[in-house]
Amino acid sequence: MFSVTILGNNSAVPAYERYPTSQLISLNGNKFLVDCGEGTQMQLMRYKIRYSRISHIFISHLHGDHYFGLIGLLNSFGLLNRQQDLQVYGPAGLQEIIELQLQAASTRLPFLLHFHTIQKAGELAETEDMIVSCFPTDHRIECYGFLFQEKNLPRKFNDKRNKPRSYAYCADTRYDERIIDVIKEVDLLYHEATYLEDQVEKASLRYHSTSTQAAQIARKANVGKLLLGHFSSQYESIAAFEKEAQQVFPATENALQGVTYLVG
Amino acid sequence: MFSVTILGNNSAVPAYERYPTSQLISLNGNKFLVDCGEGTQMQLMRYKIRYSRISHIFISHLHGDHYFGLIGLLNSFGLLNRQQDLQVYGPAGLQEIIELQLQAASTRLPFLLHFHTIQKAGELAETEDMIVSCFPTDHRIECYGFLFQEKNLPRKFNDKRNKPRSYAYCADTRYDERIIDVIKEVDLLYHEATYLEDQVEKASLRYHSTSTQAAQIARKANVGKLLLGHFSSQYESIAAFEKEAQQVFPATENALQGVTYLVG
Repeated sequence: MFSVTILGNNSAVPAYERYPTSQLISLNGNKFLVDCGEGTQMQLMRYKIRYSRISHIFISHLHGDHYFGLIGLLNSFGLLNRQQDLQVYGPAGLQEIIELQLQAASTRLPFLLHFHTIQKAGELAETEDMIVSCFPTDHRIECYGFLFQEKNLPRKFNDKRNKPRSYAYCADTRYDERIIDVIKEVDLLYHEATYLEDQVEKASLRYHSTSTQAAQIARKANVGKLLLGHFSSQYESIAAFEKEAQQVFPATENALQGVTYLVG
Repeated sequence: MFSVTILGNNSAVPAYERYPTSQLISLNGNKFLVDCGEGTQMQLMRYKIRYSRISHIFISHLHGDHYFGLIGLLNSFGLLNRQQDLQVYGPAGLQEIIELQLQAASTRLPFLLHFHTIQKAGELAETEDMIVSCFPTDHRIECYGFLFQEKNLPRKFNDKRNKPRSYAYCADTRYDERIIDVIKEVDLLYHEATYLEDQVEKASLRYHSTSTQAAQIARKANVGKLLLGHFSSQYESIAAFEKEAQQVFPATENALQGVTYLVG
């Protein structure tokens, strides 16, 4: 199974029990975490996810709603006596922030933490069945989206499916057609939709997208399905996001916390 | 009104919907935050506390379960366009950690953040009606407890009460009789109780206390009432903490999340 579980779907300030961004990607029992806003470890527990199986963590950028929960998760891994190595990928600066906090607490983690500083687009990690690569997005600070591609088509599925499955996570971004080539025809696309279209100018000024813009990208990239998230705290109800996007790209859903979406 | 609202009552790894340590102290509408574990801002929202009124934040020590939520709260204050100054008190190292994270996000807070590095026991802050002082506790790293003393007895209460009210927060600590003089006869004492008495050796090794030890301190200091917290994640039910302590000091309660306890 190749799936994405939403741990947080809100932007910036948490609101209405919506947590900041974090997603768990699972493929055949292997787990990858994408972004890790504050409270991610609580959400993993709330949804009864065996998070000790997370082997790789990818951080898109250093705005707090995407990584303030990382130090707490690493600390808990240590307290729970995790043994297996952990790979962490993120922009320059992340390693220093984490190491400073471990040092302040005189914490020695019982497992090996490997930091990988993302510097440009390209392949980041390869496991037995997945290739993860990154691509830049158009945000206020250095920011990367991630592409998860199934590597080999499992033999048993050869007769049922024509191609390996793929998931693209578009992080925080303005409307940017440069990503279309990278994410073309993925089975599942997550694209941020911080605002509705009536705030398209505000979205652009703040380096974010509207629901309609996310749908336009999905349509132009001819993806299988679109997930929307990173909703602004100004919206108590998020129902309108899905409806607005469906006008442009019908196969759209809001990313809901605690829900697992299949890829392909 | 002088009160303490519990935002988190768990130690180290969050568990069973128990959040790491944080408490809100209120006196006549002024609010002070003591410790700020991960998720504190979510807890403030959950309990519908107007947290913009917090003027002072006191961090006892740099173990993550006592401060990992601080950067998120400060960031949210910024996003919500807070204007009034904020005073933050904590051990050496805290300021560098916070400033590094603000810098990584290119965040400029719209309010003045004043850091005060705690270096020794003594008075930390004085407001119109409160004096806050600190005292060292016996923990694995530098750690301070806080004493909140009502400054002047409001005139209207002069005939009802004999003395200003006081609250002591004993942070993380081993059993340590040296604090008794400092906290003597406070109206309300919060003392950590990470373990039950059958794990008294483990408690000492890890620089923590048992429920019975907390009660012994409360009895020797002749306080009005004892609140227990910082429960280990090994306990799914915390009912036994209160019962055990009441054998030694009857006026004991478990500190429950979302509950407000009156001082005096």
